Amino acid sequence: MLTIAVDAMGGDHAPKAEVEGAIRAARNLGVKVILVGQQDVVGRELQQHESVDGLPIEIVHASERVTMDDSAARAVRMKRDSSMRVASRLVRDGCAQGFVSAGNTGAVMATAKMVLGVVPGVDRPASVGILPTVEGSPVLLVDVGANVDCSPRMLAQFAVMGDVYSRIILRRPKPRVGILSIGEEEHKGNELTRAAWPLLQALNVNFIGNVEGRDIYGGKVDVIVCDGFIGNVALKVSEGLVEMVKHVLQESLEATIARKIGYVLSKAAFTDFRKRLDYSEYGGAPLLGVRGVCIICHGRSNANAIKNAIRVAKEFSEGTINQRIEEELRGKAREAGD
Amino acid sequence: MLTIAVDAMGGDHAPKAEVEGAIRAARNLGVKVILVGQQDVVGRELQQHESVDGLPIEIVHASERVTMDDSAARAVRMKRDSSMRVASRLVRDGCAQGFVSAGNTGAVMATAKMVLGVVPGVDRPASVGILPTVEGSPVLLVDVGANVDCSPRMLAQFAVMGDVYSRIILRRPKPRVGILSIGEEEHKGNELTRAAWPLLQALNVNFIGNVEGRDIYGGKVDVIVCDGFIGNVALKVSEGLVEMVKHVLQESLEATIARKIGYVLSKAAFTDFRKRLDYSEYGGAPLLGVRGVCIICHGRSNANAIKNAIRVAKEFSEGTINQRIEEELRGKAREAGD
Repeated sequence: MLTIAVDAMGGDHAPKAEVEGAIRAARNLGVKVILVGQQDVVGRELQQHESVDGLPIEIVHASERVTMDDSAARAVRMKRDSSMRVASRLVRDGCAQGFVSAGNTGAVMATAKMVLGVVPGVDRPASVGILPTVEGSPVLLVDVGANVDCSPRMLAQFAVMGDVYSRIILRRPKPRVGILSIGEEEHKGNELTRAAWPLLQALNVNFIGNVEGRDIYGGKVDVIVCDGFIGNVALKVSEGLVEMVKHVLQESLEATIARKIGYVLSKAAFTDFRKRLDYSEYGGAPLLGVRGVCIICHGRSNANAIKNAIRVAKEFSEGTINQRIEEELRGKAREAGD
Repeated sequence: MLTIAVDAMGGDHAPKAEVEGAIRAARNLGVKVILVGQQDVVGRELQQHESVDGLPIEIVHASERVTMDDSAARAVRMKRDSSMRVASRLVRDGCAQGFVSAGNTGAVMATAKMVLGVVPGVDRPASVGILPTVEGSPVLLVDVGANVDCSPRMLAQFAVMGDVYSRIILRRPKPRVGILSIGEEEHKGNELTRAAWPLLQALNVNFIGNVEGRDIYGGKVDVIVCDGFIGNVALKVSEGLVEMVKHVLQESLEATIARKIGYVLSKAAFTDFRKRLDYSEYGGAPLLGVRGVCIICHGRSNANAIKNAIRVAKEFSEGTINQRIEEELRGKAREAGD
């Protein structure tokens, strides 16, 4: 049975959401779950639930906990027995096939990179944003913050990794891969995007060229590569704008009709709306390119999001994504005569 | 009386919106307006309106018209008698103090740069995005596409130009100036933002440090500098997301309550909402750093947007913005011993 380690002390609702998510996964997904965290705290939380005896759940002790205030460097240097560190070690040592954390994103990335290392052929792991589109099927944005300054070669690797992930996990048959730029023509863009074009064209992916910021949510592309600086800005701009839209529209709705009715209606609509925008619905975002499997969840993940992330970790491992990435990149290297 | 030239053949609704906007401006703003375009077409449009005789409006003929499909290079090289070119020449020659165009943005920028030249001390003109915030007062994003690859020194100049514009036109007493980055701490960001920090700190502006994508709409900053590539992506991501939000929310609203009522309510709310998001309400966006005044409007500007842009061009000229920018930059150069 496949085993997934869960950083039980990671998220804002830890260990409650993690424990409940683990129970749901162990019940329904056919996986074994190792909860990593302070033995007594996690054990106590587990006992709150009924009929968990006999479920494939185990607790592994980790004495420390990385907080949202810890810098990534500090987490890696100072907290060697943190729950995320122990969880990633379980993957490295083959005791688990993947791990899930809703903890400090920067710290999870740094820890996974250091403990697990990278897939052969990958220069740097990339963080992925999974965003909703008008069409309903999500789009991958690679990278969204792991690498602020990127080389053209890194962007090409992001394309290969995103393509494999989209095919296997999101089941897109022939993912359309674009590069985030300004203007549609090849020559539009900055130095990095222009230099990346020939590398992207030479890949064994369905490269559709430049896509603009407004296309991210339009459903005409499945994988968008960009450097982590711009990907992070795009992601955060979206978050900020949704907050503003919510604010402005609620005001408008309340002004349009009787205050009370407007509030009730807009609240219902927004709950529905938020759900569509909430990427935790897609089960967390993978850190692509590390050996093993690392799925990063939003800090405010609930039990359902954790369960979904465990599902993604399982599918990631079963889909032998890393092997496929390695093969694709090795093929490329051979063609290039490296 | 101050004179503003208007590219009468620029926007999607040209020359209708331009002529009507010019009439409104000539009636209410105490300016003279020169409509630049095909004499017969513009004249005919003008005659559609009542009691325009005696208004300070003049037509100057230009035989050519730049379309949205023309590249900027082509517009500059091939269409030497275009309406935007003639309008910018009127400014260069002192016959008008500024010009307004709702035409092809790239072509307007290239034309203005070439015909007008730059303010002493400015390396490159910058295009400005004017965006709404939760707080109500708009935020300036500099640059949003004129310069895809920027030096740290250019970002510092953008800060000076944005600061002056925010103070004089938007009447912010002490504009908070930030740099678009990822993470709040000084060391967070990419090579460009880190290199720009000391230059920004040394300026005579209220530099508040890094701001993140989610802060753009939050109202905690008045001027945000960034390279034109990332500014353009941020702008376009916002446009695309608003479209998606509109789509999803209308669906949700219609699902929440009786279809018909939902449609009517959401339509009213969205009209109001769009108005708040529509930056043409702020009267177009300036191209900062060119000698003279150039205000660029959205292609789909209506008469009101054109009138507002003429108002901004007038205020820009009266506020002696370019002189102030030149003085600020000269002061800086002296301190630096250039």
